[in-house]
Amino acid sequence: MKDLAEDVIISESGKVLLLIAKPVMPALEATVSSIKASGRTVEVLEYNFPGEPSFSLFEELLVTSTALNPDCVVGVGGGSVLDCAKLLAALTGNSQKVQDVPGTNILKGRKISLICIPTTSGTGSEMSPNAILLKEETNEKLGIISPDLVPDACYIDPELTVSLPRKFTAETGIDALCHCIEAYTNKFAHPAVDLYALKGIELISANLLKACNDGSDIEARSALSLGSMYGGLCLGPVNTSAVHALSYGLGGKFHISHGLANAILLPEVLKFNMPSTLSKTAQIAVAMGVKPCATEKETAKAEIEFIRELSKSCGIPQHLTEIGITADSLEDLATIALNVKRLLNNNPREVSFEDAIGIYSRIL
Amino acid sequence: MKDLAEDVIISESGKVLLLIAKPVMPALEATVSSIKASGRTVEVLEYNFPGEPSFSLFEELLVTSTALNPDCVVGVGGGSVLDCAKLLAALTGNSQKVQDVPGTNILKGRKISLICIPTTSGTGSEMSPNAILLKEETNEKLGIISPDLVPDACYIDPELTVSLPRKFTAETGIDALCHCIEAYTNKFAHPAVDLYALKGIELISANLLKACNDGSDIEARSALSLGSMYGGLCLGPVNTSAVHALSYGLGGKFHISHGLANAILLPEVLKFNMPSTLSKTAQIAVAMGVKPCATEKETAKAEIEFIRELSKSCGIPQHLTEIGITADSLEDLATIALNVKRLLNNNPREVSFEDAIGIYSRIL
Repeated sequence: MKDLAEDVIISESGKVLLLIAKPVMPALEATVSSIKASGRTVEVLEYNFPGEPSFSLFEELLVTSTALNPDCVVGVGGGSVLDCAKLLAALTGNSQKVQDVPGTNILKGRKISLICIPTTSGTGSEMSPNAILLKEETNEKLGIISPDLVPDACYIDPELTVSLPRKFTAETGIDALCHCIEAYTNKFAHPAVDLYALKGIELISANLLKACNDGSDIEARSALSLGSMYGGLCLGPVNTSAVHALSYGLGGKFHISHGLANAILLPEVLKFNMPSTLSKTAQIAVAMGVKPCATEKETAKAEIEFIRELSKSCGIPQHLTEIGITADSLEDLATIALNVKRLLNNNPREVSFEDAIGIYSRIL
Repeated sequence: MKDLAEDVIISESGKVLLLIAKPVMPALEATVSSIKASGRTVEVLEYNFPGEPSFSLFEELLVTSTALNPDCVVGVGGGSVLDCAKLLAALTGNSQKVQDVPGTNILKGRKISLICIPTTSGTGSEMSPNAILLKEETNEKLGIISPDLVPDACYIDPELTVSLPRKFTAETGIDALCHCIEAYTNKFAHPAVDLYALKGIELISANLLKACNDGSDIEARSALSLGSMYGGLCLGPVNTSAVHALSYGLGGKFHISHGLANAILLPEVLKFNMPSTLSKTAQIAVAMGVKPCATEKETAKAEIEFIRELSKSCGIPQHLTEIGITADSLEDLATIALNVKRLLNNNPREVSFEDAIGIYSRIL
């Protein structure tokens, strides 16, 4: 990342605010020094908070950012850090309040520059117009969607992902895989995005276990970084569907990490969608190198089994009870999921309350 | 195209200006009627001019558009029609004059909506921020590049290309192939665009001769439409390089059609670029289904020969003398090409004046 100081956006900025995830602070030291040496005022905020960022956490960050009044925000981290950096850039010096901007195209008019540098291969936030905050009072995850949240520049450097522990590599990797699969099987799938989705599926499925087994395997890390970028490029124009919708409650109410929640749901949701996505699921099988069976249906089933096995091999639990969710929570989870219409509307098969309960029950 | 009347942009417009290429007027009749029936004021301008659109031609169209004061412009045609439609949308009600906007990001602030509907599989204009006009006094082709020239919506309907004669199918098809190849081998190639480029190469090379031999082959036409769309998606973020630069003089000074000029140049420019693009040319061979040879160099050579043969089979002349260009014009052509720095800067290998003369000479 030593080149960051020479980035044209940085070099045209007087004051730069960097929001950096704690674990990668040491890796960014030299970069921060060289930006300082280039004559800019630099403020570094260390991000070290577990779980989804809350509105109140974000507001604290915004107070600091407003006081500094930067002309560029740089986010370096996973999805939570990047989402906060994006919102900081959009809301610093903006008369809109963060509580007022959830929803699509309500946030408007970012005035300062924004650079995102992912340190996981999963979020896709660096490529997307989305940011998610947790409303603590109600444990609701709220999406803020606006073209102003698309960064001006991204640096995707696999070296920054090398130190990511196996658990997070696996969970974020399956999250990126979800972005690709949910876009490819989406009701609003589009040829301009299909290519990203299929290439992302190919790269992630071929390299996730390798990177989990050897975090320093830079070839596997590079492939995951690229696959995750392709997954991120699916998010703006097409976006995700039922997997992400059904994981909202797991994240918001039970504070299960975003990637893990999606990973547990993915195979079962694909199975549920199969009647509407048979040939697309079979095409995903081709991208994953799964041997075609006699019929499309058998290929699709084999494909879903392949994903389940990949997920298991990476150490991801396959059942809700393994992560502390019991049967008495399923109605709550389904109620929350059915409210995420923004994503459920994208699903190739309609999901009723009973359908949602059925999906959760089968992975209980 | 019957759905066009229901397009959200059209249905929110009071006055719609359609600029339609003459040969497709009959195919659009029902569409125009249904837009009228939906209560909009509709003005149809028939476009029936040969060659590149000139500044003076465009200014005449602009007078009509300004008098109508539409809130939506729809272009239906090949590259010339779409370029004019894009500029009409951007300059109607704009205080900037068309003479003042050539260059990159000089044109600013389109106020009305813009829909593009290509009727060839070649231009990519429907996907790009580019428009080209001919300065008649000097026979110069000038590029106008601005995000405001990217349409709000495109309809890509292969049925509209079915009536395109063999000659234009071939020339525009190779133009689309150039967009893909020049983006993939570009100095500023990018993974987000590489996928479009390779898929476009695959689709066009597998279907161009089929569509030339049987214009009504709707499968081949559909593949070409999609391939051309992918080629168009290469234009904004990466764009073309030396093939397009070296064809500027052929189009501007000698009024050779854009696709034909590019088609004649393509194999020889690829050969010139080979020292810098050996493995990329070999990867293009894979996308085209050319059998790999013992070495990358041999594969690249076989690939270029494959393109030359494809072009020949489609009836495209391979020599400048066949289209009336003689040796005494080469210096002029090279001088013009060397001035197209916007594109030459993208080329993977530097092109000197002598290099340009060499390329033209070898295809004389």
